Amino acid sequence: MANTLYSGPAFDSSELRELKEKLVDAAHILDHEGITDGFGHVSARIVNNQAFITLAGVSPGCATVDRLVMLDFDGNYLGGEKAPPYEWPIHACILQARSEVMSVCHTHSKWSSLFSVLKGGLRPIHMYAKFLPSSGPPIYPAAGLVGTVQRGAALAAALKDSAAVLMRAHGDAVVGASIEQTLLRTMQLSFLGELAHMAVAHGEPIYLTEAELATFSADQAFPARPWEYYLSRIRERRSS
Amino acid sequence: MANTLYSGPAFDSSELRELKEKLVDAAHILDHEGITDGFGHVSARIVNNQAFITLAGVSPGCATVDRLVMLDFDGNYLGGEKAPPYEWPIHACILQARSEVMSVCHTHSKWSSLFSVLKGGLRPIHMYAKFLPSSGPPIYPAAGLVGTVQRGAALAAALKDSAAVLMRAHGDAVVGASIEQTLLRTMQLSFLGELAHMAVAHGEPIYLTEAELATFSADQAFPARPWEYYLSRIRERRSS
Amino acid sequence: MANTLYSGPAFDSSELRELKEKLVDAAHILDHEGITDGFGHVSARIVNNQAFITLAGVSPGCATVDRLVMLDFDGNYLGGEKAPPYEWPIHACILQARSEVMSVCHTHSKWSSLFSVLKGGLRPIHMYAKFLPSSGPPIYPAAGLVGTVQRGAALAAALKDSAAVLMRAHGDAVVGASIEQTLLRTMQLSFLGELAHMAVAHGEPIYLTEAELATFSADQAFPARPWEYYLSRIRERRSS
Amino acid sequence: MANTLYSGPAFDSSELRELKEKLVDAAHILDHEGITDGFGHVSARIVNNQAFITLAGVSPGCATVDRLVMLDFDGNYLGGEKAPPYEWPIHACILQARSEVMSVCHTHSKWSSLFSVLKGGLRPIHMYAKFLPSSGPPIYPAAGLVGTVQRGAALAAALKDSAAVLMRAHGDAVVGASIEQTLLRTMQLSFLGELAHMAVAHGEPIYLTEAELATFSADQAFPARPWEYYLSRIRERRSS
Repeated sequence: MANTLYSGPAFDSSELRELKEKLVDAAHILDHEGITDGFGHVSARIVNNQAFITLAGVSPGCATVDRLVMLDFDGNYLGGEKAPPYEWPIHACILQARSEVMSVCHTHSKWSSLFSVLKGGLRPIHMYAKFLPSSGPPIYPAAGLVGTVQRGAALAAALKDSAAVLMRAHGDAVVGASIEQTLLRTMQLSFLGELAHMAVAHGEPIYLTEAELATFSADQAFPARPWEYYLSRIRERRSS
Repeated sequence: MANTLYSGPAFDSSELRELKEKLVDAAHILDHEGITDGFGHVSARIVNNQAFITLAGVSPGCATVDRLVMLDFDGNYLGGEKAPPYEWPIHACILQARSEVMSVCHTHSKWSSLFSVLKGGLRPIHMYAKFLPSSGPPIYPAAGLVGTVQRGAALAAALKDSAAVLMRAHGDAVVGASIEQTLLRTMQLSFLGELAHMAVAHGEPIYLTEAELATFSADQAFPARPWEYYLSRIRERRSS
Repeated sequence: MANTLYSGPAFDSSELRELKEKLVDAAHILDHEGITDGFGHVSARIVNNQAFITLAGVSPGCATVDRLVMLDFDGNYLGGEKAPPYEWPIHACILQARSEVMSVCHTHSKWSSLFSVLKGGLRPIHMYAKFLPSSGPPIYPAAGLVGTVQRGAALAAALKDSAAVLMRAHGDAVVGASIEQTLLRTMQLSFLGELAHMAVAHGEPIYLTEAELATFSADQAFPARPWEYYLSRIRERRSS
Repeated sequence: MANTLYSGPAFDSSELRELKEKLVDAAHILDHEGITDGFGHVSARIVNNQAFITLAGVSPGCATVDRLVMLDFDGNYLGGEKAPPYEWPIHACILQARSEVMSVCHTHSKWSSLFSVLKGGLRPIHMYAKFLPSSGPPIYPAAGLVGTVQRGAALAAALKDSAAVLMRAHGDAVVGASIEQTLLRTMQLSFLGELAHMAVAHGEPIYLTEAELATFSADQAFPARPWEYYLSRIRERRSS
């Protein structure tokens, strides 16, 4: 830990307990809803710090509070299980580039994988796209896992100021102002992909314009409702 | 409650107990069968009254008899949880416009969302469409959640005398003479969408004519059987 | 029962107990594997008799040994619950026309419903089609539920000497030398439909010739293995 | 056992216990993940021997350590249940031809069945294809179950030095350096098939080049993580 400037709460502090539990919940939800297979991870920034917690080397469906790891943005180990995910730069580089982002989710979602290799991109045809531009998410075009800071910085540059980026032949990365929002966006990106895939069979659909997306965005949002819903589904599973 | 003319049974009266339980069952069925995600609601008219009960601000899969709300057609609160759904005008305006309708269901069904943005509409190719015209359901074309009476009235006008209306980039609204019928129609509309989607890959299918739909309509119907079936599936879940 | 010539074992006799249990198992399997929704039925001939047992007015997933009915081929009631299925002529007319058939299954299978309205039919591209001709199953073209002996006879004529018939805008009817074989064929017809549907997106697939189907047919078959398998899946559900 | 040269550990020896349990786990995973229906089998070579263990005549979902069989490469019985699978030559002939292969998996996977009859083959568009050539897996073109050594040798010749071979109108055979690797490749082949199927609707996708596949291959792999994940899913099922 010699080179880190981190001076926030310790990994094992009670202050971080709720955050860690929410990360585990988010990982289980991604698994339960079929977004992740054996791979993928979700992270959360430590408030006001250049550091984050994410899954250690474990599948989202097998995550526990003891199988998390805390790192700073250079990848220095700050606590938890000593097995950082190979693609930790996805989280570090995006969180560094986007100070308002509090959580990053990376998956091999089937629908994001599909649209990551299509020339036409993923154009919105449903109101759930209100967190996206009307041209759809950008695509990070390079091959290879994001296992270096160089690749992570290129990914963050591709993401730019968007809420999601597709990763070619690989999957996606999605960001948000909270774990809940990042999770919901990841779910909705998957739904948008499925819809856009199906629509293509029918000739040109009626895409949403920027103005229409703005109309939907102006309406009330319900961040707490779907989170409660997805939680209820994994708790049902745990108790059965 | 100052401005309401409502004089029917109170929300907590035993008279409404069965209706409220049936609404909760319907919500759980929609969730269990994969029609709703974290959003959507189903309502029932209070017999002979300008009022209805629907889900309060809760996902269908998390509904309980304590998380319902009773409103009149102007949106005045009449009982239950004090959190009317943002899109209460869907129910109020349709129930007002269609006095024979006893129940309204609104979902973001994947298949309705798809056909809501396709230029060709959803033409029937299966007998389950016997509650629809042979040209398929109308489409409400405006962007934005139906959070005002003005939008609700426009939706009711688009529905007109049909049993279902697709809502562009959004989902659907389905009506019926009972909660059971509305639920079954919502399920069947989803099935019809899936079939019509698949058919398009194979060249022009053999659509049903009005006369053929009428032949199917003339045959016996079994409203009680699928309701018993769907109930058995959610009860199995509850007891596992 | 005045007009029946039936003189076989009584509905409640121990002789028929195993047959009735197997019918209920088959119904539950159809439900569990997603072939049936709230509708559909499976029947079995009473050996050496012009009579059969099938589901009474109940969804396959809700079937029990007490919710079966025994009828002769004219529809005369011979025992069990007094609610014959509306489409009993499907079973009566096919069993009458095909003396070697011991069991008939009728479902609204999604894939059969799809191919029932397509002009190209369902041509085999997988070895599971070895019970079908290389041109695929015939299609019964009329609208309307098969609620009369006249319609049932027309359906049997469309089936002719095939193992399956698609029913336009409705579903399918499948026959076999045992409940097990009929069930497996129903499952495999569904799989064949899904494959044929997917293949169409890729240009003309390499269809199986009669000679190739015959090569597969000449190989060993395993009727007991999938039955054991499907049974294990519904028993797992029952005990959970 | 007169003609066998086998001199390795006995089927019931404690030395083989772990291997047998892993085979059963792999079979249950294939079933749970929807790769196998009532058919298919997975095998493992006895280290340094011309012999292997595989499922006896049982569906993967019903496999137990008592329903396995040990055979040499001529099909001589060496222990376990006396019901070798009809297609034992799939395993014997591939293991004989490829001395580095430790495990073979044969399924009727929906996606492999599909691409086995398509003229264009299954070209990789996702990094999971790093175990495949950029032109996709070869196709064994003959009709008929692989129930003879002659057919098994032809299948091994079609596989050649690939990690997977599609079997026309039938399914696939996949090989690996361990049961875990073979299982994961079987799962990923299925995912690749689904992606390639969906992509075709959108016009030519951006395929992966050999160089790009090599870039992905050079990155870290996680064989233990998905195995732990898939195990957790079947254990959850067993304990519910």
